[in-house]
Amino acid sequence: MDSRAGVPRYQRLADELSDAIQAGRLPSGARLPSLRQMADQRSISLNTVIAAYRQLEDAGLVVPLPRAGFEVAARLQVPQRSLRDAPSAPTAPSQQAMMARVLRAQQQPQVVDLAFAGPRGRMFYPGAQLQRHTAQALRRGATTLETYARPNASQALIAQIVRRGPRMGLHTVPERILLTHGAMEALQLALRAVTSPGDAVGLEAPSYFNLYPLLSSLGLHAIELPTHPQHGLDVDAVEALLDTTALAALVVMPTVHNPLGCTMPVAAKQRLANLANARQLPVIEDIVYAELQYAEPLEPLLKAFDRDGWIMVCAGFSKTLAPDYRIGWLEGGRFSERIALLKFQSSGAESRLLGDAVAAFLEAGNYEHHLRRLRRLYREQTGRVRQLVAEHFPAATRATEPTGGFLLWLEVPGVDTGGLFERALAEDIVFMPGQVYSRGARYRHCLRLSCCQPLDERYVAAITRVGALAREMADEAPRAC
Amino acid sequence: MDSRAGVPRYQRLADELSDAIQAGRLPSGARLPSLRQMADQRSISLNTVIAAYRQLEDAGLVVPLPRAGFEVAARLQVPQRSLRDAPSAPTAPSQQAMMARVLRAQQQPQVVDLAFAGPRGRMFYPGAQLQRHTAQALRRGATTLETYARPNASQALIAQIVRRGPRMGLHTVPERILLTHGAMEALQLALRAVTSPGDAVGLEAPSYFNLYPLLSSLGLHAIELPTHPQHGLDVDAVEALLDTTALAALVVMPTVHNPLGCTMPVAAKQRLANLANARQLPVIEDIVYAELQYAEPLEPLLKAFDRDGWIMVCAGFSKTLAPDYRIGWLEGGRFSERIALLKFQSSGAESRLLGDAVAAFLEAGNYEHHLRRLRRLYREQTGRVRQLVAEHFPAATRATEPTGGFLLWLEVPGVDTGGLFERALAEDIVFMPGQVYSRGARYRHCLRLSCCQPLDERYVAAITRVGALAREMADEAPRAC
Repeated sequence: MDSRAGVPRYQRLADELSDAIQAGRLPSGARLPSLRQMADQRSISLNTVIAAYRQLEDAGLVVPLPRAGFEVAARLQVPQRSLRDAPSAPTAPSQQAMMARVLRAQQQPQVVDLAFAGPRGRMFYPGAQLQRHTAQALRRGATTLETYARPNASQALIAQIVRRGPRMGLHTVPERILLTHGAMEALQLALRAVTSPGDAVGLEAPSYFNLYPLLSSLGLHAIELPTHPQHGLDVDAVEALLDTTALAALVVMPTVHNPLGCTMPVAAKQRLANLANARQLPVIEDIVYAELQYAEPLEPLLKAFDRDGWIMVCAGFSKTLAPDYRIGWLEGGRFSERIALLKFQSSGAESRLLGDAVAAFLEAGNYEHHLRRLRRLYREQTGRVRQLVAEHFPAATRATEPTGGFLLWLEVPGVDTGGLFERALAEDIVFMPGQVYSRGARYRHCLRLSCCQPLDERYVAAITRVGALAREMADEAPRAC
Repeated sequence: MDSRAGVPRYQRLADELSDAIQAGRLPSGARLPSLRQMADQRSISLNTVIAAYRQLEDAGLVVPLPRAGFEVAARLQVPQRSLRDAPSAPTAPSQQAMMARVLRAQQQPQVVDLAFAGPRGRMFYPGAQLQRHTAQALRRGATTLETYARPNASQALIAQIVRRGPRMGLHTVPERILLTHGAMEALQLALRAVTSPGDAVGLEAPSYFNLYPLLSSLGLHAIELPTHPQHGLDVDAVEALLDTTALAALVVMPTVHNPLGCTMPVAAKQRLANLANARQLPVIEDIVYAELQYAEPLEPLLKAFDRDGWIMVCAGFSKTLAPDYRIGWLEGGRFSERIALLKFQSSGAESRLLGDAVAAFLEAGNYEHHLRRLRRLYREQTGRVRQLVAEHFPAATRATEPTGGFLLWLEVPGVDTGGLFERALAEDIVFMPGQVYSRGARYRHCLRLSCCQPLDERYVAAITRVGALAREMADEAPRAC
């Protein structure tokens, strides 16, 4: 049985070549067979080959040759070092002050925003369908609108979450699910459920930037753990740390990491889940990008290997379906009851109207189709931006090859991305500087780009310009860097 | 000019008599003039008098006499002692454990819920109108639904909040307003903006019960301040405390307090505002019930007397207009910018769709009319429940006379309301036991009743039953209590 029976022929060819390029079997500079040769080799039409090659071109994997034909594009290096090897520096400008600057810049309409990890527009969201389902939920009568939102008011949505769980190895029951105000509130509640002020919490480095102010306002100490740009969290390091240090919790993003885009190998997930269960370590697993894994079948979550409920899962629908509705959820494992109380005490509940609208969308059965389209789209978008980086950034730049989602993480040796941020901002361009991804100065030569908007002229010009500014800075820097 | 020109004649008569009763000019047991006498005295129709008397009867202020006529109902005593005089006790069962029990009980459909401060049904909310405005906001196109909710996305709602502010003395600008996930998130953000773990925070005693777990999860120490059941927070006590103790913030509910229902006199508000400005003390003012003040013109907020932005205001639309939408707001005073960053970092933003729907309702101009109806309704409801308490609870019971809102606070001398809670719960009735309103055991003889549901047979039977259980317990108790 061909599991790809529904996939058009040109797409199968494009995927096959793309895999070969990504794996290095077709190296940079290698020439693709001509259109005619390929069509003959495969016994397919010329148009099919043209469509496949055009897609590879769009994804930045191949470039047309001056006269005719295509060659495999120059490949960016991928980052190879995790925290363990990275240089550390004693001082860093305040993460908070930098975040405030990013936020202010994003509010200026003239600024090109390469920082915000929020897609925008009908290219990325099924707005019209969601509108229809919301109108339907609204028509069902005013009763919902005349009733105080209670915790988990939308049982329909919870049923859908439970139903969809097994796709990534999450086998759960409605009683363990709590609807939250976005995945961000889920993270907050999970942390509060298992920590007290003064406790230490393990984080990946780099980590989702909002974890730092959250930990700090809860009086928690962050302990950063080495996380490889391709393989994710170093489980050996977690184990070693646990031998010497009491951790109240560990926060991880094992499947499509933000900002690294990496996914931990299944065996490493298994080891980490076993470790958490053996040591009774509460683990908070953030999966907001997990449904945007490029490759199918989807890799299982860390939670798939949980035995005794030590792993909590934080998720949401903002990245994929309903960015305005701020609907998140939390599978609280053995801490579910405590978490439900905290939710009631800290923000009450979520709107039932919005929950029911999302549930209706999921019930209608178009979500999988939509996700497949998104996966393809984001893979293409990150590929194209990667290509722009290869063309315009300093030659030594490394860029991640994400396993999903729409984020790219760059290392630009010798360039202080805090300084680059200032220069770009002066020209109305904003990106995420590396320094907000760690308490220390480890990532001052790094930056994150979002590829979740139409890659139009304005966007391309902005990336090109940041690249040029980085090249200027690299040229100014002493060679030792 | 008669400011009450639009008020029907029967209502004016009812209000006049009600004021006379509340002020004690018509004492308990006094006989009202007969219907005929009153009609003749005032030169009004018999039907007008009947309507007025019926309303007083509904509000529990008068009772019909066996043969004919009405007399002023037996008045409950109001509580007279604030924390300063109240007995304190060294141990108390965990507030958290008790809250968990209340929450679990509320989820049982067979339970009569006298605890939840959330109105329910078309009697209390304009659901059909809100539905219409929401449908309109939804029809304006899918763009909103395809865009990530950004902080303060509904500028239309912020404009309405700014426009309405002066009604209670709040003169502000859009830049100082932040939309939040209910007033609860506003409280949390305001606290986080001005405190660090380890700080001390002043609270009224009793206080909104959710403040305790919130403070504790932020590593903050609560210092309870004497708060009089009729006059509110004791400003002398605040001043004395500030002379010896560094407070990072003070959380207050000066206008329609939860649970006491009291409002601080204007002069006391002025003193407190001046004190906050002179001592540079951040004050967090919770006004979620302030629009439900029974008397017009509305009393000004504490914030009305703020000079330099030391007072933050937390508010929301859940009690009055849109319980499902969880829309709150925060006027952050001098801390507005820091608060906006915290919001972005902790829960992102609020739904623009829902914000725009509420804005459309406010723009349409029916909110004031709706509020006037609610004020009258809740005054009537609390009056009726007060009367039920007078009839069925132990004779020594005291009950607050709220200045607004829908909550009653009872003192039942000699009765442990924790024990009463257990007995009532065994009969599927839940109320808020006093012990969750303080860290200590001060309020173990107190309880809070919500009067925000139809006072139907089931509700009346539940109140009656709790009263009977309390009488049993009072009879069991040693006389010394």
